[in-house]
Amino acid sequence: MAVARKMREYVENGSMIRKMFEEGARLKKIHGEDKVFDFSLGNPNLPPPAALKERLRAVVEADDPALHAYMPNAGLAEARAAIASRISADQGVALGGDQVVVSCGAAGALNIILKALLDPGDEVLVSSPYFVEYGFIADNHGGVLKAVPSLPDFSLDLGALEAAMGAKTKVVLVNTPNNPTGRIYSAESLAALARAMERKGRENGRALYLVSDEPYRKIVYGGASVPSVLASYANSIVATSYSKDLSLPGERIGYVAVNPAAEDLPNLMGALALANRILGYVNAPSLMQRVIAGMGEACVDVSLYERKRDALAAGLRAAGYDFDLPAGAFYLFPRSPLADEARFIALLKEENILAVPGSGFGTPGYFRIAYCVDDKVIAGALPGFERAMRKALET
Amino acid sequence: MAVARKMREYVENGSMIRKMFEEGARLKKIHGEDKVFDFSLGNPNLPPPAALKERLRAVVEADDPALHAYMPNAGLAEARAAIASRISADQGVALGGDQVVVSCGAAGALNIILKALLDPGDEVLVSSPYFVEYGFIADNHGGVLKAVPSLPDFSLDLGALEAAMGAKTKVVLVNTPNNPTGRIYSAESLAALARAMERKGRENGRALYLVSDEPYRKIVYGGASVPSVLASYANSIVATSYSKDLSLPGERIGYVAVNPAAEDLPNLMGALALANRILGYVNAPSLMQRVIAGMGEACVDVSLYERKRDALAAGLRAAGYDFDLPAGAFYLFPRSPLADEARFIALLKEENILAVPGSGFGTPGYFRIAYCVDDKVIAGALPGFERAMRKALET
Repeated sequence: MAVARKMREYVENGSMIRKMFEEGARLKKIHGEDKVFDFSLGNPNLPPPAALKERLRAVVEADDPALHAYMPNAGLAEARAAIASRISADQGVALGGDQVVVSCGAAGALNIILKALLDPGDEVLVSSPYFVEYGFIADNHGGVLKAVPSLPDFSLDLGALEAAMGAKTKVVLVNTPNNPTGRIYSAESLAALARAMERKGRENGRALYLVSDEPYRKIVYGGASVPSVLASYANSIVATSYSKDLSLPGERIGYVAVNPAAEDLPNLMGALALANRILGYVNAPSLMQRVIAGMGEACVDVSLYERKRDALAAGLRAAGYDFDLPAGAFYLFPRSPLADEARFIALLKEENILAVPGSGFGTPGYFRIAYCVDDKVIAGALPGFERAMRKALET
Repeated sequence: MAVARKMREYVENGSMIRKMFEEGARLKKIHGEDKVFDFSLGNPNLPPPAALKERLRAVVEADDPALHAYMPNAGLAEARAAIASRISADQGVALGGDQVVVSCGAAGALNIILKALLDPGDEVLVSSPYFVEYGFIADNHGGVLKAVPSLPDFSLDLGALEAAMGAKTKVVLVNTPNNPTGRIYSAESLAALARAMERKGRENGRALYLVSDEPYRKIVYGGASVPSVLASYANSIVATSYSKDLSLPGERIGYVAVNPAAEDLPNLMGALALANRILGYVNAPSLMQRVIAGMGEACVDVSLYERKRDALAAGLRAAGYDFDLPAGAFYLFPRSPLADEARFIALLKEENILAVPGSGFGTPGYFRIAYCVDDKVIAGALPGFERAMRKALET
């Protein structure tokens, strides 16, 4: 056997999201691009803000001799300072550039955070449904992911989370707005979670870290805002990227921001920079660090995602689907009309509609629709969604 | 304790290369930029080829709506095909784009290769002196680095390497041209290594993989060329980057190329793409993939590095230093005139000269000089090198 045992197993089982994506490519070849309604992948379909291209040009034309050079592993001072000042203004927690590490997207951010924190066997708690990558990332660094089901409205089940915090729990990982549910966790629930973590930390004689994965922070609707994890708890760390708010997922640019009040801060920052180096990122891409440093508060036009959400939600409601209207991110997570959601996913596929089963997010009985797609994909899919529902009710 | 035990230890011990780099920054503050001669870091000082900026502009102005989007984890088809065709032309092994994964530099490439291959406790053999990061990268993925000293001329000690190949050996990792010695491994030594690996593979009933880290392949002097590892052995994998030949170290762009004859090829390619995803790279930076796809055989002006090598070598020889003239890369690795090279490094520091002790490369009694620096740094340092040698001989 050539490939590592664990990796072979992963490759053979594949990722449900990627499988649907590949199935989509197959169906498109058979039926034509416009006859397949692919809601499988969170690949933003909005273009980056117009300011991005201007900024890119300015960075290229500036002829900075260090443009493509090595830099400190934690990132360019200019990018770290810009990020820190935006967080400070936005979240009411005074951060300096020293508390920021520029990262290879949010996935890179989460990898360096868990590499920095986890000893072998340490546990990472998540509230399910949760993004499937978390399990792999915890495992990369010797950790174990432990999922705690959320309440029926997908808010945090604080009692169950506290009950699950044991002597091996090192990290509680939240994702707000949530992928796949779109849930934004309230300030009250974050405060209660923080109190529980403080209690458990004292009981166990070691700090629990609250890590918040929040690439969808700016993708919120109807005037919603995302309460700050940094403002809620001292031992808190934000992992995020510009993949969604600037539509730059392919460029792999994001950051880690650490609460200045976090325990063991200098070692933690040192460990994050070191992890960035030895995991092979070395530093986040240098040209893109300069680009994002100059983007200020620029963001894609979120009202366009809101319009997509509303069109999809109205059509699905009319067809009898059951779901809460999400306040953020660009996913709907309806209940499957069949208890075995894989069977319903198969009915959708008969309509050339691709969605991801909830079991891929640790929550069977639901499915995810990524609506970061062309309006015409939504409009074109609604009749199929309706027929699939009718078939499901007839079975 | 907040930070993972192992990471705390690493942070506290630091990297010798980075330590010297920071020491350099400190000395420059005290004595002035031009009074400190910093040979500690392999940060290329030549600008990228002029064609790079043109290509960058063309990619930015092309207005490709997918420019910054997600893509398959293995990379853009266009970049993979361009890389494969260059390797095929250069190394006489017919590769397709399917055997290439575009990576986050060579460090990213090595991380995904070892993640794909290593089961817990598997051993990675290297010939010392070796690049210090290898130990961290093997450890990231549950592996154990085992160093086998090279022969006095820094060529591979084939007998010792074969003797060190045991039941747990999964990978032999070579670095040609070598950092820190500049050694290029001959076709004969690669062929002999391949035969030994085939023998051991048969004995142990499992394949050994030959991984070649070769970011300096194009940085060679006096008409030297670098014999192909892919042409030497079926189970071979190349890890490399554009950091040195295009002077793009900050952009984190490189690739993995797998021998099409390698055992278990489809699973291996699947595991590499999956590792790219779950280690958080997701894909190599998308804009830079488009840039390198169009750079053809462009390379920095290597004759400038050769001139630096020759100026430094002549000055050091005149001062009595003992070393072989390297055929590639941009490092000299002289014998320390004091058995304890840390003491000699201290004498150099008295002259405001920064170099890295050989023990940082698993080879005490030597030190590394990275000569990818301004000509005036070399000229300015030579008197100090001479005084340090004189002091060493007097002790």
